[in-house]
Amino acid sequence: MEFKETMRQRRAVNFFDTTKDVTDAQLKEIIETAALAPSSSNLQPWKVIVLRDMDKKETLKKVAMNQPKITEAPVVLIVLGDREGWKKGNADFEKGFVNSVKAGHMKQEQYDQFVNSTNSLYGISSERQLAFACKNAGFFAMSLMLAAKDAGLDSHPMDGFDIDGVRKAFNISDQYWIPLLMAIGHFDKSKTLLPPKWRKNYDEIVVNF
Amino acid sequence: MEFKETMRQRRAVNFFDTTKDVTDAQLKEIIETAALAPSSSNLQPWKVIVLRDMDKKETLKKVAMNQPKITEAPVVLIVLGDREGWKKGNADFEKGFVNSVKAGHMKQEQYDQFVNSTNSLYGISSERQLAFACKNAGFFAMSLMLAAKDAGLDSHPMDGFDIDGVRKAFNISDQYWIPLLMAIGHFDKSKTLLPPKWRKNYDEIVVNF
Repeated sequence: MEFKETMRQRRAVNFFDTTKDVTDAQLKEIIETAALAPSSSNLQPWKVIVLRDMDKKETLKKVAMNQPKITEAPVVLIVLGDREGWKKGNADFEKGFVNSVKAGHMKQEQYDQFVNSTNSLYGISSERQLAFACKNAGFFAMSLMLAAKDAGLDSHPMDGFDIDGVRKAFNISDQYWIPLLMAIGHFDKSKTLLPPKWRKNYDEIVVNF
Repeated sequence: MEFKETMRQRRAVNFFDTTKDVTDAQLKEIIETAALAPSSSNLQPWKVIVLRDMDKKETLKKVAMNQPKITEAPVVLIVLGDREGWKKGNADFEKGFVNSVKAGHMKQEQYDQFVNSTNSLYGISSERQLAFACKNAGFFAMSLMLAAKDAGLDSHPMDGFDIDGVRKAFNISDQYWIPLLMAIGHFDKSKTLLPPKWRKNYDEIVVNF
């Protein structure tokens, strides 16, 4: 689908068709397309837990304000931002460095420099670590929603959940922030989609202080 | 441009053609397309400072590791996330509510409920406020990069800057987090773009604990 059309047609859909599934191939395609998003020092500090099983979705629903779309959508993602993705020893960090060397973007002898650089940019405070996790997860999640639309699917990003409850239910350690849940499926065409919501225009976005 | 092609062709470009400008119309188009991104309770807690003036870009460069692209790109954005965008009295919050009522998404008598809901989801701790600002700014910034590519332009999201230095130089209050700077312009075709960086595949992104 044409990019701008994808932006326009992506809507946070509240009603999912419970008779229509998302295939494993579709989900893989969406996730790997979204993974083309850029990230801080290419650290890609995002992970997802994929829920398809009704029992697991019921568990999630209980700690997510009982939102019906959690059980109605065939797939629900718990999107995670890794607050330690900048850190020496972190699996993605190490794999990222190895692959950077392989691809000729960095040299082996730059390892210590890379460790110091990401530490000073993202690791120096808990505030920075959280910002790193959330911004990059935001890049990835936005790309996911567009990739879903482009694949003929619909999505809904959700904030209405109890972070600590989700942590406990799915054994998610403090290493990860949970920036959002995302339902993915097909819009239930028997329902009416409200008109698009208001958006700020250029003059409402651009500021000078 | 086709969506997946836009995802593939978007690259963090290090070298900008200093002879090619970005028009005001292009910039407006990019920003308003990106503004179609979803946000927490549609609060759109994003702002940008647009730098075109060479003096201002020089000022920014000094607090951004002297990155040459800051003065080489015709446009540099300071992207902001509003940590108070969920709060009664915040201009965007109030405008958002008024427009929600106008569009039939909410009723006037739901105002207090809206205030309480956004407060409990985004306002209850400084951690939540920061996560709210960064995730949503992430949605917007990702959309900006894709919209730029779709408009035939290139971009570069930058983390390499001194947040406090940028705050001071551009008079940005603590209300805003600065998740990134973004250079926008045309790739300098006399330079070589390195091959795309490594990305995690599906199995490296999906986790279970």
